[in-house]
Amino acid sequence: MVPEELQEIIKKKDNFVLVTHVHPDGDALGSLLGLTDILEGLGKRVLFYLEEPVSYLYEFLPGCTRATHDYSEVQHFFDECHDNIGCIALDCGDADRMGVNKNRLLQNHPFIVLDHHRGHKPFGDYRWVEPERSSTGEMVYELSSALGAELSYHAAFNLFVAISTDTGSFRYDATTPRTLRIAANLVELGVRPDEIAHRLYENFTLERLRLMELVLATLEMHVLNQVAVIHVTREMFKKSGAISDDIEGFIDYPRTLRSVKVAVFLKETEDDVISVSLRAKGECDVSRIAKELGGGGHRNASGFRFAKLTLQQAKEQVLTILEEALHEGQAAPLDNMGKVA
Amino acid sequence: MVPEELQEIIKKKDNFVLVTHVHPDGDALGSLLGLTDILEGLGKRVLFYLEEPVSYLYEFLPGCTRATHDYSEVQHFFDECHDNIGCIALDCGDADRMGVNKNRLLQNHPFIVLDHHRGHKPFGDYRWVEPERSSTGEMVYELSSALGAELSYHAAFNLFVAISTDTGSFRYDATTPRTLRIAANLVELGVRPDEIAHRLYENFTLERLRLMELVLATLEMHVLNQVAVIHVTREMFKKSGAISDDIEGFIDYPRTLRSVKVAVFLKETEDDVISVSLRAKGECDVSRIAKELGGGGHRNASGFRFAKLTLQQAKEQVLTILEEALHEGQAAPLDNMGKVA
Repeated sequence: MVPEELQEIIKKKDNFVLVTHVHPDGDALGSLLGLTDILEGLGKRVLFYLEEPVSYLYEFLPGCTRATHDYSEVQHFFDECHDNIGCIALDCGDADRMGVNKNRLLQNHPFIVLDHHRGHKPFGDYRWVEPERSSTGEMVYELSSALGAELSYHAAFNLFVAISTDTGSFRYDATTPRTLRIAANLVELGVRPDEIAHRLYENFTLERLRLMELVLATLEMHVLNQVAVIHVTREMFKKSGAISDDIEGFIDYPRTLRSVKVAVFLKETEDDVISVSLRAKGECDVSRIAKELGGGGHRNASGFRFAKLTLQQAKEQVLTILEEALHEGQAAPLDNMGKVA
Repeated sequence: MVPEELQEIIKKKDNFVLVTHVHPDGDALGSLLGLTDILEGLGKRVLFYLEEPVSYLYEFLPGCTRATHDYSEVQHFFDECHDNIGCIALDCGDADRMGVNKNRLLQNHPFIVLDHHRGHKPFGDYRWVEPERSSTGEMVYELSSALGAELSYHAAFNLFVAISTDTGSFRYDATTPRTLRIAANLVELGVRPDEIAHRLYENFTLERLRLMELVLATLEMHVLNQVAVIHVTREMFKKSGAISDDIEGFIDYPRTLRSVKVAVFLKETEDDVISVSLRAKGECDVSRIAKELGGGGHRNASGFRFAKLTLQQAKEQVLTILEEALHEGQAAPLDNMGKVA
């Protein structure tokens, strides 16, 4: 299942640079840190590069402080190792997601890509892309089995974080029997699901809860209650004292509403830029909408940015697009979920 | 693992009455409905009794409309079947939890008890109690395997609901490799985790979200930010238009705060009765506190009721007790969770 060629390259090289996408989430960081540990367990040297420091939400991940944020170290490592080195990009659906050093990174060969995003845009020299997989973490687990590597507790911990965050705690549709069995194997290695849940979901600041109150108060229902819209302004951040990372997960609240097919979260970032997140329930494919507007993502979770629009203008544009999409029948009626009732 | 004696009784009898606790949650209903299907698959007749109609939150569970709410039907079924019948109570940690017909139910023999509550108070004729199990649903799965029963899709669906609700989506400490492997087997039988998550967690009313806003605004932090208290009044229900079932899960919001060791949710019910829910993180055992005050529950989730106290008085009493408990070192410092950092 794991391509032979990929296994061969990894066996052959003694040094690796690992990278992932900008604003890395649990799957990006967990699979990167997990693979770092696995490769080091096989006696290889690993350097991993992140454009920015790790968010406070993921600071608890074992090993994450080892990241380098200085691209020249990557270059230096490559120069030093001559041909005995490879670069692996994890969880990047698109080369652009690697950030400002994308072009410099892609000059390193062999450049290996491991990803599970639907609509992955091919890049690099060797690709292993599995859009049916729940997470890149799941793929790293399979890779470690294929390589006959022993998983350390830290690797298991990081891979559990990767899998559980990218499946929303084993709730999303990509959660397969295999996903759950891999999770079981990781728990057998000593990972405690309650400890990870505590670190991931019980680690918030009071400022975040205050911001949540302000954001929930902005809730508007549109398109026959099928679209729920919330937003956050710079002013709200100031008022609550919260920081940018604190909005993680806010969009899940409007999604909990029964009648909602698409939840929209508009965020006022720098001047004249509005970032938009979309979350769909059921059959609606919001990655198509995001792609049309220059963004990307998964079928049920996608995002894009509007430059030079006010919050209100951005909201109106999104609503016009969603009204059409839902009217076109891209979104199935909620009753489709009712087959067991 | 499943007691031989229990298997023998079930094999021997052709008719069963199934009951569970009052205000049944996902594990209570899922394990009851799952076992109903399993027993019927073995050719037995099953009647199940619930004191009250099923909450709108669980109306989607296949088979739940078949419940009888009329105790005389239970009596009639027992009379009709003479000795060829048994009664099974699922997920009841205590006979009192069976509700107003407790005494009448216990007159039926053999009375079989399947439960996983820590601090289970023994009752009935035959007991299978496994406090280490994540859920009664997990035990019903094991029972069906022991009996060689084939699980229907509906049974698998109900058992997945039981297991996933009682583990908070595989997040609580009772989540073992076996729990996850059973979940994997259920998914293999056609259960879709995303469909169940949609039904359980994306099924809420706008009134509920409005009530949540009001309740979050009541947040108070006490005992060096280790205790977070929220409350709901009858007035807030009126203002939001929400109903009693809508507060399900509210207590999880204050629990998400980093510094919080115990979250408290006070609910003004009928005149002069305040119901109190406690949720603990880490090492604090709130079932002890609840038991002292005439309530019960799990280590990390318990509850009790104050009669003849105002909301404010109830809050003060709870805070006094928690201040002592946390001071006594019942609650370990959060750093205990930090062993991998």
